[in-house]
Amino acid sequence: MGFNKTLRPGLVQIRVLDLDKTLHFYKEILGLNEVCRSSDGLRVCLKAYDEFDHHSVTLRLASEAGLDYVAFKVNSPEELERIKDEVVAFGYRIDVIPPEYDQPGFGKRYAFTISTGHRFQIYSDVKLADQTPMIHNPDIWTEPPRGMRATRMDHFLLYGPNIAEAERFCKEVFGMYAPEVCNTVDGNRLAVWLTGSNKPHDLAFVEYPKPGKIHHLGFYLNDWTDIGNAADWIAVNRLKLDVGPTRHAITRGLTIYFWEPSGNRIEVYAGGYSAYPDHPQRVWDSDQLGRGLFYYSGEMVPSFLEIVT
Amino acid sequence: MGFNKTLRPGLVQIRVLDLDKTLHFYKEILGLNEVCRSSDGLRVCLKAYDEFDHHSVTLRLASEAGLDYVAFKVNSPEELERIKDEVVAFGYRIDVIPPEYDQPGFGKRYAFTISTGHRFQIYSDVKLADQTPMIHNPDIWTEPPRGMRATRMDHFLLYGPNIAEAERFCKEVFGMYAPEVCNTVDGNRLAVWLTGSNKPHDLAFVEYPKPGKIHHLGFYLNDWTDIGNAADWIAVNRLKLDVGPTRHAITRGLTIYFWEPSGNRIEVYAGGYSAYPDHPQRVWDSDQLGRGLFYYSGEMVPSFLEIVT
Amino acid sequence: MGFNKTLRPGLVQIRVLDLDKTLHFYKEILGLNEVCRSSDGLRVCLKAYDEFDHHSVTLRLASEAGLDYVAFKVNSPEELERIKDEVVAFGYRIDVIPPEYDQPGFGKRYAFTISTGHRFQIYSDVKLADQTPMIHNPDIWTEPPRGMRATRMDHFLLYGPNIAEAERFCKEVFGMYAPEVCNTVDGNRLAVWLTGSNKPHDLAFVEYPKPGKIHHLGFYLNDWTDIGNAADWIAVNRLKLDVGPTRHAITRGLTIYFWEPSGNRIEVYAGGYSAYPDHPQRVWDSDQLGRGLFYYSGEMVPSFLEIVT
Amino acid sequence: MGFNKTLRPGLVQIRVLDLDKTLHFYKEILGLNEVCRSSDGLRVCLKAYDEFDHHSVTLRLASEAGLDYVAFKVNSPEELERIKDEVVAFGYRIDVIPPEYDQPGFGKRYAFTISTGHRFQIYSDVKLADQTPMIHNPDIWTEPPRGMRATRMDHFLLYGPNIAEAERFCKEVFGMYAPEVCNTVDGNRLAVWLTGSNKPHDLAFVEYPKPGKIHHLGFYLNDWTDIGNAADWIAVNRLKLDVGPTRHAITRGLTIYFWEPSGNRIEVYAGGYSAYPDHPQRVWDSDQLGRGLFYYSGEMVPSFLEIVT
Repeated sequence: MGFNKTLRPGLVQIRVLDLDKTLHFYKEILGLNEVCRSSDGLRVCLKAYDEFDHHSVTLRLASEAGLDYVAFKVNSPEELERIKDEVVAFGYRIDVIPPEYDQPGFGKRYAFTISTGHRFQIYSDVKLADQTPMIHNPDIWTEPPRGMRATRMDHFLLYGPNIAEAERFCKEVFGMYAPEVCNTVDGNRLAVWLTGSNKPHDLAFVEYPKPGKIHHLGFYLNDWTDIGNAADWIAVNRLKLDVGPTRHAITRGLTIYFWEPSGNRIEVYAGGYSAYPDHPQRVWDSDQLGRGLFYYSGEMVPSFLEIVT
Repeated sequence: MGFNKTLRPGLVQIRVLDLDKTLHFYKEILGLNEVCRSSDGLRVCLKAYDEFDHHSVTLRLASEAGLDYVAFKVNSPEELERIKDEVVAFGYRIDVIPPEYDQPGFGKRYAFTISTGHRFQIYSDVKLADQTPMIHNPDIWTEPPRGMRATRMDHFLLYGPNIAEAERFCKEVFGMYAPEVCNTVDGNRLAVWLTGSNKPHDLAFVEYPKPGKIHHLGFYLNDWTDIGNAADWIAVNRLKLDVGPTRHAITRGLTIYFWEPSGNRIEVYAGGYSAYPDHPQRVWDSDQLGRGLFYYSGEMVPSFLEIVT
Repeated sequence: MGFNKTLRPGLVQIRVLDLDKTLHFYKEILGLNEVCRSSDGLRVCLKAYDEFDHHSVTLRLASEAGLDYVAFKVNSPEELERIKDEVVAFGYRIDVIPPEYDQPGFGKRYAFTISTGHRFQIYSDVKLADQTPMIHNPDIWTEPPRGMRATRMDHFLLYGPNIAEAERFCKEVFGMYAPEVCNTVDGNRLAVWLTGSNKPHDLAFVEYPKPGKIHHLGFYLNDWTDIGNAADWIAVNRLKLDVGPTRHAITRGLTIYFWEPSGNRIEVYAGGYSAYPDHPQRVWDSDQLGRGLFYYSGEMVPSFLEIVT
Repeated sequence: MGFNKTLRPGLVQIRVLDLDKTLHFYKEILGLNEVCRSSDGLRVCLKAYDEFDHHSVTLRLASEAGLDYVAFKVNSPEELERIKDEVVAFGYRIDVIPPEYDQPGFGKRYAFTISTGHRFQIYSDVKLADQTPMIHNPDIWTEPPRGMRATRMDHFLLYGPNIAEAERFCKEVFGMYAPEVCNTVDGNRLAVWLTGSNKPHDLAFVEYPKPGKIHHLGFYLNDWTDIGNAADWIAVNRLKLDVGPTRHAITRGLTIYFWEPSGNRIEVYAGGYSAYPDHPQRVWDSDQLGRGLFYYSGEMVPSFLEIVT
């Protein structure tokens, strides 16, 4: 019972090649706020202006771009233990990460690797940020949102092998459902969009031979006009555009893909329908995936299937 | 466990004084589609273009405007029985409404009266509409949305006595949470916004001496530009505006209130934050309620507290 | 020949009561840039980020809010002399203001008083600002627009006696035309909107017994979403709202009226049709002026007719 | 003196291959209204809902897509004769087209061929359409705009040889100015944008060896949200997209290029700065033209330079 054992993806750790230039992007262009840095200067924690929890994005200085792990927040310590037991029952080995380890403000986390080779974590306790949205007679913001005005870390698209198992895991253990799927002509999953909320996706998978790859990290903007504003910032700052502005038919979201200075693909995303678990699942044939992803041109963009980190 | 025993408010029956003129509003101006009529011509069932279920709004010809009842969809027949038992345990008497009675396409419903004098119903089974959003390689719409382009019936604000009990009921029995509340200086609830989803409200209550009143029925639009378009339709069609376009600080929604031809207050609403049960509750002092409701002027509109149906 | 002897209203001098608080509004909230100050500290010159000329708004510290004068730019020194001669022929006495007097960067200006008691000026020469929009392989902006993101000083509405003569002057001498007018039931002008361009108004007049009054100074925003953003800034900064967001049926502009800290009414305005001198004139009956001004409510706002500075 | 001898491009005749399918596009998707048809059924006259004149677009059934001619409206019969004389003085041979010939509602037109091989016409008299925008206590529309909600025929981009002469002609004879130009490394004009109004372009030229070609015909939409809506209509109706939604850095317009069913490239366009003849000219280097045209990707789209009709 209950489709929302997980509240949301609440934390992601991303590898970046260069802190100065890349941080400038995340802070001044994307609009995140810096929360803290590790004492060795190798990691920086960030959050969007409209998020309550301590931070949602950690950048780690590394020699190669990509994803370290994603972490999902669950609703209570009891739920955390229950889900941990279900992870074990599903067959994945659990590592325990003690409170405050590596991620200031975060309580105990459990970590494990899923079929696609991605590291997942779950946690229930995290401190509120020092600067959250107001809660007493609140204004809509206290400092004007900057740059692209990202409101939250929203979702990610992961590439790896055996997404059928990953989908089953997200449904059975995380209590998620799949508002949209894409199947090959012989009936195999090519891609699946999964959510534990009314968002049309909290994460998505594409079947891919190499494990542990990330296609993009998505941030939420308010609307189509903010998508246009984000495109203006891409242009003025000479960021490398991948695709957009366009609409996904899948999720109906309004979107731009581009690369941040370290080479991680970022999506800024707005709109999208309200998903409910009782709604019929939307099904895409793989020969229509181009239209599903890039609704306006109706054609697949080669870089979408080829470039991951 | 689980905050979302109820999926959403899925059906509302509204009393109207005149079918021709009022239906013209709901269909050609608000943009709903007619689904069916009762054989006696006294009731008309409607749905928004982006809803899946059979219908979401029933207009009933009557001598006085107002609300007959609201009905909440739950996730399964088992959940329906469980919640029904909890309603009884909470102390409310249940009436059983057999399948298809009065509302074509709907399965068994349970009805009861809450502390504020409003009739609530719950159900789990309802047929899909003949014309739902596409689900196989879907387009974003099949017929262009009309008029104000309402995407769904979204929420309602109910006025009545003893909202403290109503709030407790919605939390304990429906598994909802309250993203925002407004308290009087002596610490009593003046108003509460409640949700069983990531919408900032599925319904709201304002304390009021007379039972069973409805302040407004809210429909969801895509964005601020559609709010402007709705205002254009209000103006061209000489509908009576109450307030807006403006923003609520409460829920952050973008909004217009106006009256349909039978005198029921309608809200068209867009935006609003994504609510989560772990987010801190936002609390309003009653002397700031004007700002909370009408953020741009910062002042209460007398009609808001005085006119209900 | 030629309807556009005047290019546009290019400069306005406004009286303010307090430089610190009021300048904060014009710079950080409205989004203008400070260009220069007089050595006595009594005047500050400002421009919008998207304007080319030296400055467009001068604030003068005074004991009473209101308008000192408005100045219109004409296309060439020859045109300036021709128009000056026509002003004299129309019957107004000319004062010559030498280059750089009071307004750094401005060439010779001619000043005179029209029938409504307002001081008008004309000029053809003004230096480009140090920071203009880019002109070689230009980006759309070089520094991100701030606050309400005003793109230019756009128009003003003047209140005074004998607007019939003022209208005749603007047409005959300035070569303007009147896209819209409002007449009383006995056929007299109550209001007139005048332009020398494709903007639906460069200025407007309302008949009023006291001379030399200004109703509002209007700044141009990009679109309805920027109108909403401006309303957010009004709310967060607790500025006093007069009316809006709404649409004028007159000019079709999207609009908010509010007061800056010194008590001058400001309009932020977007949209509006493209005016052409061959288009039929739109005519309003005075009993429809409420709808013409505030299209969504359809009703006059008393403060609109009563409060001027 | 006077930069606006011509009011605007007011009429264009386009060749189409198929009346049924193509008309369906112009009427139901682009949103134009049919005004009249020739008795032989070979030509159909159309106008946008927000235009006053009799019609602005004529489709002519032909075996090849492309442009027959464009016609510019001037402000008076006297101005028409003056400009005609200047055309002759410039060295072009004039053909006189009698009133109502081929184009119902239009008075006398003068036709001539410019250096790029395009047929131009000028006229001053044209009847108002039966259904114009309202002018007495006007609503903003009388019938809700359809489809892409085009408000007017706006501009065109012409490809042909010797655009230097065409530019000189538009300036000297039509009194236009060029807000933006693009030059090759050796200082020759590659492209020029020209206007006789405050629109950033009434027409534009690109140097091209073949005479008389049209790159696209542009229609004006209200804003970026209407650009998104137009893209939705392109997708739902499976029209062939060329580029967009994107922004031009040149003119700053928001834009989509696509092909109508007969293969003429259509642009839907919104925004763009207000041009004035005293503003500095913006100059583009040809190696930056990709960025100038397609600001978000910063890269030239090959079809832009290769496909014309």
